[in-house]
Amino acid sequence: MDITPPQSNVDVLIIGAGPSGLMCANALGKAGVNARIIDKRLVKIAAGQADGIQPRTIEVLQSYGLADRLLQEGNQMHMAAFYNPGKDGGIELTARAPDVTAPTARYPFEVTLHQGAIESIFLDSMRTYGVKVERPIVPTRMELSSNPSELLDPQAYPVKVTVQHSDDSHPERQAEVIHAKFVVGADGAHSWVRKTFGIEMQGEQTDYVWGVVDFTPDTDFPDIRNRCVIHSDSGSCMVIPREGDKVRLYIQLADPKVKENLTLDGRVDRSKIGPLDILEAARRALHPYRIETPEKFDWWTLYIIGQRVASKYSVHERVLIAGDACHTHSPKAGQGMNASMNDTHNIAWKLAYVLRGWADVSLLQTYEFERRQYAQDLISFDKKFSTLFSGKPKSELNLDGVSHDDFMQAFQTFGGFTSGIGVHYAASPIVASHSKHQHFASRLIIGERMPPQTVLRTADSRPVELQDLLVSDTKLKLLLFLGDLSNEDQFAVVETFARELTIVLESFAGNEWKEMFEIVTISIGRKSDLKFTGVPAMLRSHWTKVFIDDCDVTETKGGHAYDAYGVDVQGAAVVVRPDGYIGCVASLESAEPVDQYLSDFLRKRS
Amino acid sequence: MDITPPQSNVDVLIIGAGPSGLMCANALGKAGVNARIIDKRLVKIAAGQADGIQPRTIEVLQSYGLADRLLQEGNQMHMAAFYNPGKDGGIELTARAPDVTAPTARYPFEVTLHQGAIESIFLDSMRTYGVKVERPIVPTRMELSSNPSELLDPQAYPVKVTVQHSDDSHPERQAEVIHAKFVVGADGAHSWVRKTFGIEMQGEQTDYVWGVVDFTPDTDFPDIRNRCVIHSDSGSCMVIPREGDKVRLYIQLADPKVKENLTLDGRVDRSKIGPLDILEAARRALHPYRIETPEKFDWWTLYIIGQRVASKYSVHERVLIAGDACHTHSPKAGQGMNASMNDTHNIAWKLAYVLRGWADVSLLQTYEFERRQYAQDLISFDKKFSTLFSGKPKSELNLDGVSHDDFMQAFQTFGGFTSGIGVHYAASPIVASHSKHQHFASRLIIGERMPPQTVLRTADSRPVELQDLLVSDTKLKLLLFLGDLSNEDQFAVVETFARELTIVLESFAGNEWKEMFEIVTISIGRKSDLKFTGVPAMLRSHWTKVFIDDCDVTETKGGHAYDAYGVDVQGAAVVVRPDGYIGCVASLESAEPVDQYLSDFLRKRS
Repeated sequence: MDITPPQSNVDVLIIGAGPSGLMCANALGKAGVNARIIDKRLVKIAAGQADGIQPRTIEVLQSYGLADRLLQEGNQMHMAAFYNPGKDGGIELTARAPDVTAPTARYPFEVTLHQGAIESIFLDSMRTYGVKVERPIVPTRMELSSNPSELLDPQAYPVKVTVQHSDDSHPERQAEVIHAKFVVGADGAHSWVRKTFGIEMQGEQTDYVWGVVDFTPDTDFPDIRNRCVIHSDSGSCMVIPREGDKVRLYIQLADPKVKENLTLDGRVDRSKIGPLDILEAARRALHPYRIETPEKFDWWTLYIIGQRVASKYSVHERVLIAGDACHTHSPKAGQGMNASMNDTHNIAWKLAYVLRGWADVSLLQTYEFERRQYAQDLISFDKKFSTLFSGKPKSELNLDGVSHDDFMQAFQTFGGFTSGIGVHYAASPIVASHSKHQHFASRLIIGERMPPQTVLRTADSRPVELQDLLVSDTKLKLLLFLGDLSNEDQFAVVETFARELTIVLESFAGNEWKEMFEIVTISIGRKSDLKFTGVPAMLRSHWTKVFIDDCDVTETKGGHAYDAYGVDVQGAAVVVRPDGYIGCVASLESAEPVDQYLSDFLRKRS
Repeated sequence: MDITPPQSNVDVLIIGAGPSGLMCANALGKAGVNARIIDKRLVKIAAGQADGIQPRTIEVLQSYGLADRLLQEGNQMHMAAFYNPGKDGGIELTARAPDVTAPTARYPFEVTLHQGAIESIFLDSMRTYGVKVERPIVPTRMELSSNPSELLDPQAYPVKVTVQHSDDSHPERQAEVIHAKFVVGADGAHSWVRKTFGIEMQGEQTDYVWGVVDFTPDTDFPDIRNRCVIHSDSGSCMVIPREGDKVRLYIQLADPKVKENLTLDGRVDRSKIGPLDILEAARRALHPYRIETPEKFDWWTLYIIGQRVASKYSVHERVLIAGDACHTHSPKAGQGMNASMNDTHNIAWKLAYVLRGWADVSLLQTYEFERRQYAQDLISFDKKFSTLFSGKPKSELNLDGVSHDDFMQAFQTFGGFTSGIGVHYAASPIVASHSKHQHFASRLIIGERMPPQTVLRTADSRPVELQDLLVSDTKLKLLLFLGDLSNEDQFAVVETFARELTIVLESFAGNEWKEMFEIVTISIGRKSDLKFTGVPAMLRSHWTKVFIDDCDVTETKGGHAYDAYGVDVQGAAVVVRPDGYIGCVASLESAEPVDQYLSDFLRKRS
């Protein structure tokens, strides 16, 4: 009897099929990378769990062609309402304010949709790339080679993972040994991958105990379809409207019964406290509004907030952890799933570049550098926000309490952060140092995501959202603001730049540079007379990539790109990373700064 | 041996599965009407044919939830370019202008997509309602009962249609006798249904011979992605960009070779003239621009313009004809497929009402009344436009020719017509006479389609396009502009109106009036403080139907509905037909005008 389990090779093995793992699998599938994704659960989750999608995450999903379905199926939160203790002992509306306070957000709202539906969007998309989740598969053993040359060779298989299959046709567990070039551990807060490598979580558990209930409410509360932050004398409560008529309530549980039922490891004993207890606490906070007890709850949970970040995000850049596996925090700002999906959105293109031989393994160091810093910032923010949220309202009896003004100020200050729009990656091999060139596009901040703007396609005067040209297809996008080509001097500058740029791009990718780079030009001109054929041929791979900064035929959209981006008539060259973040800004005077930026992380052809 | 063919019953039998028949089948399927659709062709067409979708037709498709896919797959024409003889003997750009000149168009462009792709959109949608095309089935005999009581009884089956099946499993032809309550003949220009009932086509054949070629061009013509109207000294030509990189050229063929090859019935002999001849004519018109001969043409045809309308559109309202079966005209204004689809969009809800017993068979008379008038207007327009289009350019040698200014004036004057936006149905039982009430919503013209406008959903401040509430679900929409409900007098008026309206609606549909009517309210107020629960309960079936005329959280969308619609603070009640056309405008002072309007075509419950 042969006891050697079957062996197999794969470029990337993803462990865990939650939002983080699925984002990774879909992105790698779209990039044509050989990847497998396994999950220990028999079926995907059906309800509850995380469900808030931030404006920036919607932009990211759109870059994969997945936002339409999200917007169709999900609920949108445009407005936030703030309730505080009123004169009659109950709560009253203090103010309403936009839920999203990031002025450049393309989608000025958050979307709520249950995690299972979000996962389905990825699963359906992945299928078109030939990738599907293999389940249930439990990893049982993982070893990483300690051979330095193997660790640095992108074509080596330094990770050996033993897994156990179990499916209907093979009810007995079957072992398989998978040899992977890279492993992404997206296996949740209790990550087996993280524990296997002894990576520790740093940070604290808080005292706050929270209850969550999902149901379809019968209520006379007039803001039940807005995100509500309710500070009452009977505790704090948050209302999150959801798809259809559903609503989620987050309620702070101050009841002594809760504290009494804390288990030794700090969890809440779910056999003692149930959704009716949580609803009862919400009812006290919502007084004088009524809220009926529903026939059923779609989902409910209890938790104590922990705010922790993994001490490191990778082991020799060959095993990377992402999502809840490396950060846990309060769900109230709706960050969890967003941070998790954006972790692997950050990883995917880098893995593709390394596996294709375009970049060294060291490129993957930028993953921890960028995403761990983000998680730490997130936790600092979360601590401040949670304290304000859980605090008692300020009153004559409680002068130390949290005033509405304190809360509103925090809500708005952190708007860029909670929307995901304000994420700023620090200088690294893939983010040029703030240089003397930033001023050529003074409002395209190096290290931040490329903001949206409508431009006009020269050949057919169709208004196009520039972000829609930044597809997550692993290409580096060169946005060339060419200025006014009817000016002969400018045309000469552009022609010279075009020649130099060709040499630069070919130095990285030879004649096939269009596999690695995409050039988009945006000129100054009027749709009434400009000809798309006027742009130098080398800079127009196709008529659909030639634009002008002009308004559309209705004179209502477009025409503000140069202004909004801080570009003037001399133009600018902007390199946008495959994940939509601005890597470099340069002038058109020379292609040298672009060459320098790209050389920091791309291999030159010998 | 039994020679009696199998017999079957159906409520509506649709003959012909082109755009007209498919629109009908999809609409009836969505309405839950028992319908079958048959076609004599073995498979649907794959390329070529009609391919232009007007702005109004996009709105209509959107009302069935079908516009997203059309917009995703199709090309958009935003701009029209006009070329005329230049100084050097070739053509030169005279001007560009918006392709669509209807200011209220929700989609300010036309979409081009080949007919097969458009048909697929309907076929996929129909499938979700359980309707599919049965093919190949050829109708061979049709008889209509002459019994007057049967003709007036909506539940009778007065039409007997004998058809011949032939499919792979039954290669021999098999007969079936279908007993139908109603038949819709959407079987094209050579309609068998029309001929069976001896309905004649009235109008003329023109002298103009046109060639059409579809291909992917290699050219330096800078307006190849715009709709172009080219008047050259070597003939007229029209460029219609299509999906992907494809283009369609329409070329007037003045070559004597063409005239010589006219067959006796006025058709062109396709064995003598081919796509290369057509392209050669285009090449002469496009000089000095080059256009290469492609490796293949995707489709091509030759035709002589006929401008004819059927003498009648129905036989006793039990057999109705639609689409090319009742009107043929020049394709240059892109009207054909649009007129055809809008014919059956007009029929579908009326058939549903009659079959449900909500209205008498006579309601169907409004189909011919509305759509035949439209077809006649279309042909008048087409005659003028064709003459201008085919005419020689004005020059010093040809002072009687068509000047660019003549053409532009016509192009813009007819903008409302060519976009489909300006369609105006005359007074009838379903279009209230212009009454003393029109001024309550002075810019919602009775008989025209409900124009778009962004309104804000009160409960969650989500901006919503009002047209998206006018789903083609066969319900009559009551748009109630309630004014400012914080004004006590206004609130009292609204409360009284609500009580009266309930009685009116129940008089037509009893307690189940929500099956027939949908109420949408639009109040005056601010999103910062208004509560959706403030609208009288009878007027809010659901929180998603309560709106305010305010701008969204970004302060960029919405807030202009009252102004754009010409409604003032006293409010208005507007009844929109299930096909999106305004049937009646009234004040809130009394529900009597609404009652009167509805009584003209709906049956009262006894």
